Amino acid sequence: MNIFSKAEFEQRLMHTKASMEKHGLEILLLADPANMNYLTGYDGWSFYTPQLVAVVLDEAEPYWIGRGMDANGAKHTCYLAEDHIIGYPDNLVQTADNHPMRFVADFLKRRRWEQRSIGLEKDVYYFNARWLEELQLALPNKDFLDCSLLVNWVRSIKSETEIKYMMRAGKIAELAMQAAVDNISPGVRECDAVAEVYRAQIRGTREFGGDYPAIVPMMPTGEKTSAPHLTWTDEPYKDEQAVNLELSGCCHRYHSPLARTAYIGKNPPRQLQTLADNVVDGLNVTLESIKPGITCEEVELVWRKHIARFGLEKESRIGYSLGLNYPPDWGEHTMSLRPGDRTVLQPNMTFHMILGMWLDDGGFECSESFRITETGYQTFADFPRKLLQI
Amino acid sequence: MNIFSKAEFEQRLMHTKASMEKHGLEILLLADPANMNYLTGYDGWSFYTPQLVAVVLDEAEPYWIGRGMDANGAKHTCYLAEDHIIGYPDNLVQTADNHPMRFVADFLKRRRWEQRSIGLEKDVYYFNARWLEELQLALPNKDFLDCSLLVNWVRSIKSETEIKYMMRAGKIAELAMQAAVDNISPGVRECDAVAEVYRAQIRGTREFGGDYPAIVPMMPTGEKTSAPHLTWTDEPYKDEQAVNLELSGCCHRYHSPLARTAYIGKNPPRQLQTLADNVVDGLNVTLESIKPGITCEEVELVWRKHIARFGLEKESRIGYSLGLNYPPDWGEHTMSLRPGDRTVLQPNMTFHMILGMWLDDGGFECSESFRITETGYQTFADFPRKLLQI
Repeated sequence: MNIFSKAEFEQRLMHTKASMEKHGLEILLLADPANMNYLTGYDGWSFYTPQLVAVVLDEAEPYWIGRGMDANGAKHTCYLAEDHIIGYPDNLVQTADNHPMRFVADFLKRRRWEQRSIGLEKDVYYFNARWLEELQLALPNKDFLDCSLLVNWVRSIKSETEIKYMMRAGKIAELAMQAAVDNISPGVRECDAVAEVYRAQIRGTREFGGDYPAIVPMMPTGEKTSAPHLTWTDEPYKDEQAVNLELSGCCHRYHSPLARTAYIGKNPPRQLQTLADNVVDGLNVTLESIKPGITCEEVELVWRKHIARFGLEKESRIGYSLGLNYPPDWGEHTMSLRPGDRTVLQPNMTFHMILGMWLDDGGFECSESFRITETGYQTFADFPRKLLQI
Repeated sequence: MNIFSKAEFEQRLMHTKASMEKHGLEILLLADPANMNYLTGYDGWSFYTPQLVAVVLDEAEPYWIGRGMDANGAKHTCYLAEDHIIGYPDNLVQTADNHPMRFVADFLKRRRWEQRSIGLEKDVYYFNARWLEELQLALPNKDFLDCSLLVNWVRSIKSETEIKYMMRAGKIAELAMQAAVDNISPGVRECDAVAEVYRAQIRGTREFGGDYPAIVPMMPTGEKTSAPHLTWTDEPYKDEQAVNLELSGCCHRYHSPLARTAYIGKNPPRQLQTLADNVVDGLNVTLESIKPGITCEEVELVWRKHIARFGLEKESRIGYSLGLNYPPDWGEHTMSLRPGDRTVLQPNMTFHMILGMWLDDGGFECSESFRITETGYQTFADFPRKLLQI
C-alpha cells in the first residue's frame, strides 16, 4: 500500500535535514507519532509504549525504534530498510527497574553518537518526563536540546498528495455532519446519534474508507454547550435546544474537522439566530480576507473587528494549523490565528478556523478547514454555513 | 449525573492520602486523566492541553487546574467546590514563550506550598519533559519527587460501582464482538466492518450507552495479523484468512476488552485449529488457577507450563490490570501477569488476560477481562472461547 511515494519521504527528510543544519542538530529523536509517520510512514496504535524515530544527519534513512512486537508493523508501513527497524525486548515495557530509553541510550553509545548534538522532542504528548530522566541518567554529561516543533514546521506546507487526503477527509466530514443532523432528534440518546457519526467517519465513501479521527465527536446539547470538551452521555436530546457539533473526517491520518450548530425545534430563539447570523458573516468575511502573504494575526483581526461591532469578543484563538495527526489532538501546534502570531501564510498551509460565541444559555459555533491557495483559500468540506435546523 | 457518590470520592481521596503519608508526600500534582477523573470526577477530552489535579494532604478536596474554557466542563463533572476549579488564561495554550506550568508554579508559590514535598507524575502520557523543565525553571531549588503509579495502585481494587460499570463494558464488548462476526465477510472492506463495531461500542444497550474505548478496534487479517497494532484499511477481507479481533466495551471510562480470532471460510487450516484448541485450553486452565492469594507470576507460570508442552513460548506478558482510562491505553500500568511480578491477587482487582501465539502465516488470540472474586474469578463478558467461524 503506497500512501506516499518514496520520493515524497526523501523530500520530507531533505527538508528536515535542512532545518537540522540550521539549528545545529546532528541527530533528532522524534517521539511525536505524527512526526514518526511523516518521516517513515509508520502507522500503528503503539504509541502507548515508548517508541522513537531517529534522524541522523549523515544517514540516508531514519531509524524506527520501538517495541519488538511492533517491528512487524513497522516493516509493513515504513519505507525503511529492515536494518533501520529496531525492536526492543518486551521486558522493558511498563516496568519500574528498566526503561526503553536505556535501550535508546545504548543504541546511541554503540554508534558513538552520544558525542553529537542531539535534539529531543521534549514538548510532545508521548515524550514524558521519565524518558528524559532515563536518557539523562544513561548519558549524564549530555546536554540534549529541545527540537519540539522542528518537524511540525516542516509539515506545515502540504504536498499535493497530502492535500488530496485532506480533501477526502473533508468529504468524510460532510457525511459525518449529515449523519449527525439526520440522527439527532428529541428522545434519541446522545450515544445513539454519536454512534451513527462514528459509523459515517469510519465507512468513508465508496471510493475511500475513513480512518479514526484524533478527537472523538463532540455533540453537546443544552447547558453542556458551554463546556466545549465534554463527551456524550446516554441522555436523550430534548426539543428546543441547541446542539454544537464538532467532528472530523480522517483519511490516512489527515484531518478535516468541521463544526456547526443545530437547533432542535422549529423556532430557534431570536437571540441565537442573530448570533448565528453574525458569526457566519464573520466567518465569511474572515475567510475572504485570506491570501498568501498576510499573517495569522491579520486574519484574526478581521474577525475581531467584525464581532466587536456587536459588542462581542472571543478570548481564545480562532484557528490553528492542522493535518496529519494522532490522538489526542489533530492540531499541528505551530501556527495559531491569534494576536501575536506573525507567521506569513503560504500556499498549501492548512488550517481549521473555528468561530464560536457563547451567550448565557448556550452558544453558536461554525468552522471550516481549508488550505491557502495561490490567490485565496479552498475549503475541504462543503456544508451550509448557518444555524442548522433539526 | 451521579456516576459515583461523593462518599466514594472521599473514600478514594482517603486512600490516596494514606499512600501519600506512607511515601512522605504532602502534595501530588496528577496529570494522568484517569487519575484526575478518579479523584475528582472530571471527564472531558481536554487532555491535549496541560491540566492537573492537585491533592493537598491537609485540604478536604483536591484542586482541578486546567484551561479556562474547560473550567465549565469541570463544574459539570467534578464533585468539587467551585473555588477548587481553577482555569488558566488561553494565551498560555501552545505558545513558545509561556506555559501553563508557570501558572501552576505561581499557584503553589502564592500558597507557600513550594516548601512542601511535592510529587509529580513523571511517567504518564501527558506529563511531558517540557512541563518538568518549566516547573523546575520556575522553582529552581525544588526537588520534585516522582509519584507515578501512586494513584494507579489506589485504583487497583475496584468498588462495587466500578465493577458494575466494568460488567456493563463487558456486555458492550459482547455486542461489539458480535458486530464484528456479523459484518466481516469476503469482499467487505475492513473499514466498513470496523464502522459497525464502533457503532455497537457507542450505542451500548437499551439500558446504558457506550463510551469511547481508549484504544480503537483492531481487526487485522492475513499477514497483518503478525503486526498486532496496525489499524484498518479500506481493503476488502478475503476468503480463507484469519482475522484477529481485539476490541473493548467502555462505560463511564471503564473498560472490558475482549479478543478473539475468527476464520473466514469453512475449513480453517488444521495447524491453526490445533493452535486455537491449545491456546483456549491454556486460557481455561490459567483462568481456573486464579484466586486471591496467588501472585501475578504464578498465574503466568500456569500458562507457560501449559504452552511449553506444545513446544511454544510467549515472550510478552499475558495480561495486565485495567479499568478506568483514556487514550492511548486502557491498561493501569501497575500489575502484569509475567515472571517477576509478585503482586498478590486480591478480590476486585481486575485484569485483561490476553493469550496469543503466532505461527509463520498468522496466529490465534483469545482473551478475557475479569475480576478476582473471593474464591476465584468472574469474567465481564460471555462470548464463546474458540476459533470463531465466518
